[in-house]
Amino acid sequence: MSHSTTANAVKESRVDVLIIGAGPAGLMCANGLAKAGVNVRIIDKRPEAIPAGQADGIQPRTIEVLQSYGLADRLLQEGNQMHMTAFYNPSSSGGIERTGRAADVTAPTARYPFEVTLHQGAIERIFLDSMAQSGVSVDRPVQPVALELSDDPKQLADPRSYSVKHINTPLNSPPTDENDETEVVWAKYVVGADGAHSWVRKTLGFTMDGEQTDYAWGVVDTIPETNFPDIRNRTAIHSNNGSCMVIPREGDTVRLYVQLSDVELNAGRLDKSKSRAEQVMEVARESFKPFTISFPNPIQWWTVYIIGQRVASNFSAKERVFIAGDACHTHSPKAGQGMNASMNDTHNLVWKLVHVLRGHAHLDLLKTYEDERRKYAQDLINFDKKFSALFSGKPRTEDNADGVSHEEFLEVFQTFGQFTSGIGIHYQESAIVNSSEQQYAKGLIVGQRLVPSIVLRAADCRPYQIQDLAPSDTRFKLIIFCGDLKDASQRKKLDSFAKELDSETGFVKKFTPEGAPFDSVFDILTIGTTKKETCSYTEVPERLRSHWSKVFIDDVSLHHGLGGKTYETYGISSNGAVVVVRPDGYVGMIASLDGSVQHLDAYFSRFLLSDK
Amino acid sequence: MSHSTTANAVKESRVDVLIIGAGPAGLMCANGLAKAGVNVRIIDKRPEAIPAGQADGIQPRTIEVLQSYGLADRLLQEGNQMHMTAFYNPSSSGGIERTGRAADVTAPTARYPFEVTLHQGAIERIFLDSMAQSGVSVDRPVQPVALELSDDPKQLADPRSYSVKHINTPLNSPPTDENDETEVVWAKYVVGADGAHSWVRKTLGFTMDGEQTDYAWGVVDTIPETNFPDIRNRTAIHSNNGSCMVIPREGDTVRLYVQLSDVELNAGRLDKSKSRAEQVMEVARESFKPFTISFPNPIQWWTVYIIGQRVASNFSAKERVFIAGDACHTHSPKAGQGMNASMNDTHNLVWKLVHVLRGHAHLDLLKTYEDERRKYAQDLINFDKKFSALFSGKPRTEDNADGVSHEEFLEVFQTFGQFTSGIGIHYQESAIVNSSEQQYAKGLIVGQRLVPSIVLRAADCRPYQIQDLAPSDTRFKLIIFCGDLKDASQRKKLDSFAKELDSETGFVKKFTPEGAPFDSVFDILTIGTTKKETCSYTEVPERLRSHWSKVFIDDVSLHHGLGGKTYETYGISSNGAVVVVRPDGYVGMIASLDGSVQHLDAYFSRFLLSDK
Repeated sequence: MSHSTTANAVKESRVDVLIIGAGPAGLMCANGLAKAGVNVRIIDKRPEAIPAGQADGIQPRTIEVLQSYGLADRLLQEGNQMHMTAFYNPSSSGGIERTGRAADVTAPTARYPFEVTLHQGAIERIFLDSMAQSGVSVDRPVQPVALELSDDPKQLADPRSYSVKHINTPLNSPPTDENDETEVVWAKYVVGADGAHSWVRKTLGFTMDGEQTDYAWGVVDTIPETNFPDIRNRTAIHSNNGSCMVIPREGDTVRLYVQLSDVELNAGRLDKSKSRAEQVMEVARESFKPFTISFPNPIQWWTVYIIGQRVASNFSAKERVFIAGDACHTHSPKAGQGMNASMNDTHNLVWKLVHVLRGHAHLDLLKTYEDERRKYAQDLINFDKKFSALFSGKPRTEDNADGVSHEEFLEVFQTFGQFTSGIGIHYQESAIVNSSEQQYAKGLIVGQRLVPSIVLRAADCRPYQIQDLAPSDTRFKLIIFCGDLKDASQRKKLDSFAKELDSETGFVKKFTPEGAPFDSVFDILTIGTTKKETCSYTEVPERLRSHWSKVFIDDVSLHHGLGGKTYETYGISSNGAVVVVRPDGYVGMIASLDGSVQHLDAYFSRFLLSDK
Repeated sequence: MSHSTTANAVKESRVDVLIIGAGPAGLMCANGLAKAGVNVRIIDKRPEAIPAGQADGIQPRTIEVLQSYGLADRLLQEGNQMHMTAFYNPSSSGGIERTGRAADVTAPTARYPFEVTLHQGAIERIFLDSMAQSGVSVDRPVQPVALELSDDPKQLADPRSYSVKHINTPLNSPPTDENDETEVVWAKYVVGADGAHSWVRKTLGFTMDGEQTDYAWGVVDTIPETNFPDIRNRTAIHSNNGSCMVIPREGDTVRLYVQLSDVELNAGRLDKSKSRAEQVMEVARESFKPFTISFPNPIQWWTVYIIGQRVASNFSAKERVFIAGDACHTHSPKAGQGMNASMNDTHNLVWKLVHVLRGHAHLDLLKTYEDERRKYAQDLINFDKKFSALFSGKPRTEDNADGVSHEEFLEVFQTFGQFTSGIGIHYQESAIVNSSEQQYAKGLIVGQRLVPSIVLRAADCRPYQIQDLAPSDTRFKLIIFCGDLKDASQRKKLDSFAKELDSETGFVKKFTPEGAPFDSVFDILTIGTTKKETCSYTEVPERLRSHWSKVFIDDVSLHHGLGGKTYETYGISSNGAVVVVRPDGYVGMIASLDGSVQHLDAYFSRFLLSDK
């Protein structure tokens, strides 16, 4: 980014992407763009990164996404894992008793079949450290002052024009004539990731549609002392003394969510006096009976809130200014969705911005951000309403036949497992989601994420998780399932696929910039079914392997019985198939191996641009 | 360590352990001692750490050992993995052809069922970075000048006396009267890890017993260009144009071992002129035919050598000065044993030094170093002789019926798999290896390393590798297999075990220093068989759990089917058992759960000391 000083001493600068807000959505965005080499700047009005508290649950799909950026190892090292959920309900003797236990995650294909809990500050630091490697850090405290979007159609039609004028000022030093630190930032694109009270959203005039609920909750993070055997599981306590959710956290910390009954609002806002934390602990003490819980250690963080369930009217202004995260959706925290939805918003946006900025994609590609993420946010709110109502309801007892039964609660909990885990996110048919040839791989749903599976590298028989072969590196992955190359007909199909792909008019050459490496836009992998004892990576045409490491087989590993089920899991026959994985890890298209180059060409031509 | 200056201006210092030589053996030693908080110093005469080449193969057991120090992750990130071995032999058409492929590692219980290859400099850096966290770095270049071991029996009987006087001098600045940089180091213990030409060994007057062989070999590290399909597997080529071993390495680098036929010795030493590297590549070109291999890239490292197979006459002088690594055993590099044996030498020594220095163990404990490691070195040489002879022999062909057949070679290769992997290392009966109650866990061999297995943590159902519950943290692990605590008789046994253990005369209180935390010498874990749906970690007596995280169950994980086979694998019945794991991860003793506290007491009393 370049800074310059104008005649009237107002600083001016230019940047490709300006991100406002350095929470999880903003940081995912900044890190992804920085790694892709985009000129990015991120500002935040908080003077320092948050040290503790806030959102803390990372869902299975989000762990997969973090892994795709190389960030999961550290998350797993630092975070706590929730594998089990326990349910407690009123017992006949007055207190509570365990009604049952169940897997916390009910999505069978999850690569990481658990949730990770870690305070938001630690999660943010993972991004901050990663961004720092690309030389990007957060400018803070910086206060946004104005945002003006060009209305010149010609300028807006140029994807690389600086169409947004943004003005900001260092916080705590308001501009005066003599000490004017106001800065003008000219940005090609702006991402507003500035939270539930988003300044960007308000400035754009977008509304939040939906309603506030009556459910008031208190949250406390601390290290309790207790004889409760499920204190390290996610535990839902439904008692006649109130409801309580236990969320175990890193180290010995536990988060307690407690429903507050005697809520008074002051002008629509909750009284946040310190006594609220005491109240949360008191409700916990009561609802835990006959188990004991006490609080001898400091409170690390606490808050009270009323659940709001709202979605923004728009996620984008002219595909130049976007909002993401809490700025466009708010919901209850109990299903652990907030931070996950936020990070996945910008994960969805990053690769689209990169391709447009590089001049490789139509501006229209950016429209798919709102299409894909707003629908998801609405689904999320609908789910949240059901879940929150159920969780906030009184338990069913002899005296209260209208209450929520354990069975009812468990059913909803498990039915929505695919949804709450993030694994089931399904992007609808669009320019970038084409399911017309879904039948060639029925186990791999177009619009959903690439299902995890183990394959062996042909050259050295090393097992690889296929998701790790499709990292978030902005490239499209072309996975060629070629069947058995010892079979002459498969051999012929692959040779002819390679030849077509290699033609001057084929999509690979068409959409790869002049002079750029052959694999800079499309990364090509092959996965065959020849056995490990006899396969040779050299059997794959050179055109389809940029390196010996790009050839794989679907066979069982030499030890530990890993792999050998990819074709079966994906529903791919011995005739093979071709799978396009988008840069964000979602399946964009499936095609037959036979004569599919034209279909693939049509798919990519809908949103990619050629410089030829 | 403290430095002081005496009247005659010779620097003097004191240190608990002085290590001479910063190769793999010395660094494993320094890192282990530093992590344990021992006052340690390590010197090396090389001015800088080696950048490339040298030994490069890490065996499965060594990976487990590195993991026990928290160092395996980085090794696995940086290193190449060898999973598969390929065998090539003369074909009827004149060149070579693939006779078969087999798993590179044939030890069924290996946690990491592959070898890691990475140049020695990178492996050393892993240790250097880890040591730096404890504030220890290598003093270099420093040249040892003299070593004097006290002959005062009273002094030698005091484990904390400074019994060794060592003199050294900075290399390249020989002491003069005016510029005397000679230093006197008073050490309690000295470890000589100074390589095959060990100055320490010679100074102590130890001999190397064994003989030089006639096999001369050349080694080249480079990135070749080839159409050979097994270039990324460990490949043994037996051709009529010579033998060649391919060892794939990190990145695209390949190491080639080639047998040299026209060797001339100059005064017992090989001519190491540069032409030797050319000769190696020429032999490779010939033996690879009909495949092509060329060498367009720089040679990263090369050497030629004659295999020596020798073991030192002694590994220790009065249990005050020890030698380790190449200083006490040399052998051929082709089975990838050298660096592994070296690191495992000092891994064996570290915890013994720590306990003696802390005053927790008898001096005699140090005798077990030579007992355990010299026997291993001799076994290694015996194996190496067989393997080298076989590998250096001509292949069996129609013209040469006395040659080595593929079947013969493969049989030896696989028979010795347990041995070459390091998994089968078996320390004999001694003060610290007591197999008298082996029958209570027949699948867990006393004297061998703790067999990997997955267990679930009772409090949160998280799967753990049992080896990770027994890290190299200098503590003895007491693993109590208590069976099903819902069974009244098991419950009773465990309660009575806990009560006995808690008595003032029990070994835990006896051998834990006054005022030290209860788990500072013995880390106690329980593994029950209660199922995950109903277990409660609170059911284990408080005396046996220093923390909620110390209670486990042998059940199958909620997803991915991990675990549930530990009792079966270890051969432990529903009556339970107690397993003592030494601080180096080897099983020291097995006992019944019933009335075993006395047996355990007798075991620990043989080598531990009480301060009471």
